[in-house]
Amino acid sequence: MVYLNGNFIAKNQCRISVMDRGFLFGDGIYEVVSVYQGKIFSLNEHLQRLQKSLDSVKIANPHTQKQWLEICNKLLSYAPKGDYSIYFQITRGVGAERKHDFETLTPTVYLQLSKLVLKGKKLLSQGFSAITQEDIRWHRCDIKSTSLLANTLYAQNAKENQVEEVILQRNNIITEGATSNVFILKNNILQTHPTDNNILAGITRDLTLKSADACSLEINESTFNRDDLMSADEVWISSSTREIMPINKIDSQAINNGKIGKYWNCVYDHYQQLKND
Amino acid sequence: MVYLNGNFIAKNQCRISVMDRGFLFGDGIYEVVSVYQGKIFSLNEHLQRLQKSLDSVKIANPHTQKQWLEICNKLLSYAPKGDYSIYFQITRGVGAERKHDFETLTPTVYLQLSKLVLKGKKLLSQGFSAITQEDIRWHRCDIKSTSLLANTLYAQNAKENQVEEVILQRNNIITEGATSNVFILKNNILQTHPTDNNILAGITRDLTLKSADACSLEINESTFNRDDLMSADEVWISSSTREIMPINKIDSQAINNGKIGKYWNCVYDHYQQLKND
Repeated sequence: MVYLNGNFIAKNQCRISVMDRGFLFGDGIYEVVSVYQGKIFSLNEHLQRLQKSLDSVKIANPHTQKQWLEICNKLLSYAPKGDYSIYFQITRGVGAERKHDFETLTPTVYLQLSKLVLKGKKLLSQGFSAITQEDIRWHRCDIKSTSLLANTLYAQNAKENQVEEVILQRNNIITEGATSNVFILKNNILQTHPTDNNILAGITRDLTLKSADACSLEINESTFNRDDLMSADEVWISSSTREIMPINKIDSQAINNGKIGKYWNCVYDHYQQLKND
Repeated sequence: MVYLNGNFIAKNQCRISVMDRGFLFGDGIYEVVSVYQGKIFSLNEHLQRLQKSLDSVKIANPHTQKQWLEICNKLLSYAPKGDYSIYFQITRGVGAERKHDFETLTPTVYLQLSKLVLKGKKLLSQGFSAITQEDIRWHRCDIKSTSLLANTLYAQNAKENQVEEVILQRNNIITEGATSNVFILKNNILQTHPTDNNILAGITRDLTLKSADACSLEINESTFNRDDLMSADEVWISSSTREIMPINKIDSQAINNGKIGKYWNCVYDHYQQLKND
């Protein structure tokens, strides 16, 4: 069961007009929210970011916080209790003709649930691989937009290279992963790219920093380069669906001899506590 | 009447699955081809560029050149003879689930006709205005992709500023317009950004260069900056639907005292001849 513009319908029967600007122009915004055993996690933070993205592209938010919660709960009521991702997509709506500029339209609202299968600590603690690539995305990566062609090409490249993620660099600065934020740890200092137009301000990024603070790590939100990445004691990526994942091999080279660092252990555990709070 | 995956249907009844990757990821390619009184203009050139775009994002071309022509002709047969734009959109297709990476899917093919209303020489020769803005698009502008959010925001900005086009600059280099290529003319030399990943290799750009050659202009495909733009003798933009348009005001400042240059006159006339060849 999915949600489209007020209706709950079967996913394979859910259709939109070809004139939807989401289809014609990638003119839309999205969010992905985790649900753990029926409990929606950090919904307010995601809705705040959704609002920021919508404001940036001048789409009016079609629902109040309360209405979003009601839609989510109704959608969840059709599924057995468990772990899910809720995908929200809001496009500018259906135009009368194809033209780049726009009038005020009724936004298209689409939500779907997907089963969320978390890797769990045992699997995560084996470490994962990544590759680095030039960041060719647009310069408003702070907007969570559905114009995602670059990101799909990165994800495909990761799959073809049998790695978990592509870590991006622009002008010799590591920005973020194609679908995650990136952290490096060196001498008890945790470093990550500051939140600006070059990265998406991840909700899990924030919670990782909060957890790191609880583990007595010093936090440094500033830019770093590939050399810093490759010589780090620990490298992690974070996202709602991956949580906090240790990366111990990048571009076929072991990070800190492939060891999973002790700080990941502490920060991961704290993050799990936040989920249960 | 529009075309979708083998069928000719009424536009307002034409629907696609929400799982179409064109809707979820802007994961598609497009082209716009002009038709003058029933005659499709430069179709082969557009189909060649379409092939290049599809190759760049690993979508297989679902049709041969002959099949594309047949679809276009059938679509045109439903409309009275006249001037049209044919819009082609090919997306990667409908996935079983939402995930960035992809398997080989059956591409979605959508075509529609729009009335093409050309401005004509008298109106064009009054000159048009533009503004400049930072080029925040991705770094593969040579791919004609439907991940167009940046372009829609530029077009909206142009409309709100009551100008014809936004001219983009990246690292102090003028790249192109949001939906056009840009030319400057100084001392009988016509200059335009070379075809690389920063611009779309416009079909009308090529024909403008061909026409300029016929007008005995020297052609210089190299980068130039905003100062060069503002101090040019003539500035033009080109696109399939605008043809060759003189710009005589940029950022509220007159170009060459607002005069329409003599070379535009010659190049425009030659371009009209090419259309009738």
